[in-house]
Amino acid sequence: MAEHATPVRRALLSVSDKTDLVPFARALEARGVELLSTGGTYRLLKSEGVAVTEVSEHTGFPEIMDGRVKTLHPRIHGGILGRRGQDDAVMAEHDIAPIDLVVVNLYPFAATVAKDDCTLEDAIENIDIGGPTMVRSCAKNHAYTTIVVNHGDYDAVLKALGEHNGEVPKPLRYALAVKAFEHTAGYDSAIATYLSRQQESDGFPATWSTQYLKKQSMRYGENPHQSAAFYVEAEASEPSVSTAEQLQGKALSYNNVADTDAALECVKAFDDIACVIVKHANPCGVATSKESQLEAYERAFQTDSESAFGGIIAFNRPLDAETARAIIDRQFVEVIIAPSVEEQARPILAAKTNVRVLECGQWDGAEATPDWDLKRVKGGLLVQSRDQGMVGVDDLKVVTERTPSDQEINDLLFAWKVAKFVKSNAIVYAKAEQTVGIGAGQMSRVNSARIAGIKAEHAGFDVAGSVMASDAFFPFRDGIDNAAKAGIKAVIQPGGSMRDQEVIDAANEAGIAMIFTGMRHFRH
Amino acid sequence: MAEHATPVRRALLSVSDKTDLVPFARALEARGVELLSTGGTYRLLKSEGVAVTEVSEHTGFPEIMDGRVKTLHPRIHGGILGRRGQDDAVMAEHDIAPIDLVVVNLYPFAATVAKDDCTLEDAIENIDIGGPTMVRSCAKNHAYTTIVVNHGDYDAVLKALGEHNGEVPKPLRYALAVKAFEHTAGYDSAIATYLSRQQESDGFPATWSTQYLKKQSMRYGENPHQSAAFYVEAEASEPSVSTAEQLQGKALSYNNVADTDAALECVKAFDDIACVIVKHANPCGVATSKESQLEAYERAFQTDSESAFGGIIAFNRPLDAETARAIIDRQFVEVIIAPSVEEQARPILAAKTNVRVLECGQWDGAEATPDWDLKRVKGGLLVQSRDQGMVGVDDLKVVTERTPSDQEINDLLFAWKVAKFVKSNAIVYAKAEQTVGIGAGQMSRVNSARIAGIKAEHAGFDVAGSVMASDAFFPFRDGIDNAAKAGIKAVIQPGGSMRDQEVIDAANEAGIAMIFTGMRHFRH
Repeated sequence: MAEHATPVRRALLSVSDKTDLVPFARALEARGVELLSTGGTYRLLKSEGVAVTEVSEHTGFPEIMDGRVKTLHPRIHGGILGRRGQDDAVMAEHDIAPIDLVVVNLYPFAATVAKDDCTLEDAIENIDIGGPTMVRSCAKNHAYTTIVVNHGDYDAVLKALGEHNGEVPKPLRYALAVKAFEHTAGYDSAIATYLSRQQESDGFPATWSTQYLKKQSMRYGENPHQSAAFYVEAEASEPSVSTAEQLQGKALSYNNVADTDAALECVKAFDDIACVIVKHANPCGVATSKESQLEAYERAFQTDSESAFGGIIAFNRPLDAETARAIIDRQFVEVIIAPSVEEQARPILAAKTNVRVLECGQWDGAEATPDWDLKRVKGGLLVQSRDQGMVGVDDLKVVTERTPSDQEINDLLFAWKVAKFVKSNAIVYAKAEQTVGIGAGQMSRVNSARIAGIKAEHAGFDVAGSVMASDAFFPFRDGIDNAAKAGIKAVIQPGGSMRDQEVIDAANEAGIAMIFTGMRHFRH
Repeated sequence: MAEHATPVRRALLSVSDKTDLVPFARALEARGVELLSTGGTYRLLKSEGVAVTEVSEHTGFPEIMDGRVKTLHPRIHGGILGRRGQDDAVMAEHDIAPIDLVVVNLYPFAATVAKDDCTLEDAIENIDIGGPTMVRSCAKNHAYTTIVVNHGDYDAVLKALGEHNGEVPKPLRYALAVKAFEHTAGYDSAIATYLSRQQESDGFPATWSTQYLKKQSMRYGENPHQSAAFYVEAEASEPSVSTAEQLQGKALSYNNVADTDAALECVKAFDDIACVIVKHANPCGVATSKESQLEAYERAFQTDSESAFGGIIAFNRPLDAETARAIIDRQFVEVIIAPSVEEQARPILAAKTNVRVLECGQWDGAEATPDWDLKRVKGGLLVQSRDQGMVGVDDLKVVTERTPSDQEINDLLFAWKVAKFVKSNAIVYAKAEQTVGIGAGQMSRVNSARIAGIKAEHAGFDVAGSVMASDAFFPFRDGIDNAAKAGIKAVIQPGGSMRDQEVIDAANEAGIAMIFTGMRHFRH
């Protein structure tokens, strides 16, 4: 691309987000840059005493149609798009003055339509035509011009102007052009998604367009021969692995992020002090405690200490020093995540420099905003609403002769919350709000139950007196018959099988109390 | 939104894709519509004898800077954006003639940069500024105007004009506006992705922007309380669940699509006649045959006939009548997918009207194009290159005293291909290119092996003489010791453990032949 001196002599400013605009404009003014502007930006600069010319005065064409047409003019776009050197003659001929710097940002369309009183008509009226066109013109011509769509870049631009005799160096112009096209792509994606949703009876737009921001490059993906990167939502606000801050340790791997997500989302399900240990995308130990975080961890670890080796550990309370000490002294751990890490815990963790420690901030109760889950298939994408369903005590339907005791109900709800996060088919055995055996990822429910039993035995637990959760209904009575033999005394499951009565009969015969939730939690 | 008569009197045509343009323009001309155009579109219409005015003549402003600035003019955008009725006076005052129909499409940016000789400078020069602006102006003002970005909509527009006295009804204008913003969003996403990739050392762009097209709404998602839809890539070409055509049966559910994808991608790994049965995202039976498809199916079914109930069955050869008959007579099946379905098989399948039967077309060998795998986490997205790795005979490294026999090597590679598609930790037992036990989704490798053994026993297989594949290395020798006890005679695994020597010693002590692939296949 031809190199050409491109001092910034004239700038056009028209922004929705006016953060830091005035000092930026003043700094440009002080450098002798001529400023053009429109609408609210013009009025603000004028009221602050910044020397600025209205675009309509510059073009000689009035702003018409309530501002719909103001910058869509050859004197603006010729000024932005002209190739310095090459197009100088034609610019002079048509009295087109070069515009070297464009500062434009668009009011987030998603924010417009999120307002309660926003009608379809309001939303459409808010679609900006002139702004994105200037952004795109200037980004295209970044060989000569500078586009700024974010106030966070003002300082870098001013610094560059100061250091390079009033020019912005090419790499910065390029980087800003990339941001510009990201900005317009995101803007039109939001518009297309909103408009499309209005006409689709299922609420799913005709095209699924989303934009994520790169947070981290990774050495590799799920396996070493795969490349990978971690992207996050621009607007992610709820504490999650995506918003978490890493306090220490090696960079997160692909599998670390996936497993940390599973652990954290699971531990969020509990109100009492809780600990979740995840390995290979599955909880391998979960427990709560009324007493202490240490107890919650100890009991979670106890479920499957073999699998907990090299696992991911999540807490729903600030990580305290005694728990940190117990983990570090006992086991190899890949990641620890908690809402925060207490000061006294930090030096203890720091002794193991490789351990990744993440603080995600404290969440405030149940997930509020609807959210989308994505599953990639070859050539396509399955999109579904996130599984945010969870039953409470009032939703439980006792279907057996025996009603579960209060302690059994606590354990049943505990086991049910865990089962939601175990890969299907999921069977969870629990007692006193501690998992005693987790059977995951089997093609038949009977085998998942068998694994839960094997695990309980391996850990030295007595299954007798435990409860059992099943993420989907039992198709046959054998699941209950086997549970009865193992000593299970209460069962929670969705119900809904053709053979529900046969399954209920099996429970009654064994004196098992059984609850139907009416809600399934497949997770594959 | 205000209703107003909006007869189409003037249209602006400027298209990259000229399919069907001339007859469309002639039909507009015949309706008395005044046509404006630019560049190649203008020249084509002119040469075909269609009456058309150049945009520069209409605006009174010349096309300058090699076409960079031609339509960015108030007479064009005022003509498009003017609110009929409300803005009539200002339009008359400035001599702005209304433009009621805009026909513009953009040359796909992804296609531009896919060309071998496309430089960064070429790519940037190809970024269209005027076109997207007209598309966006007209889409915004769809209360009065009609935007067409795809030649596939020409007929609908002409039909509407004919049936509604030269007007396009509001619902069609709205639907076309949605397509318009999808078009510009996709265009800028492609630009942002391309430009960003150039400056990122890892090749992953700063924002991950993608667009998928809705193929199917679903009754629900992974669970009944979740809503869902199936989206596909616009350019998906390789045969897959996303490109497949459904011949019969109920609509595909969310879980059907996910499982069909797993089954089909797995069966693609085999050259011999093969059958894969999937349940809950895992292969539960895989076999090949040198003889017949029926034999491949029978042997796959044999592995785990319990799990195969309600499964998804995939073939890598056209589905023949005898295999279709065997499936229908024997088992409940959710989905059958094959490259094609022979004519004689169709009536056999038609007898079971609920069974979903899909034809995906014949693929031609290994996956050619790089592809992206996505995993959603709360607040973010993990992106990785798809696991397209697969070892061949030449990549195998024998690490034991005993070298596997040819038959063992065949079986080892067979088991390895299956293990790649089994959820981790994955252990696959196989004999004579038939799975005899599959252990999936466990947090410890030992338990996966135990499950494989349980399954083999349940199916009545003698494990003695089988081979074993493990998707990742054995951390300890116990995995091999247990395998030896079960009668496994050859093992395939990546290797790479700190204790590899201990594991190799265990194999040597048992007379097991072991191969290291150097490639892991985690799949969670």
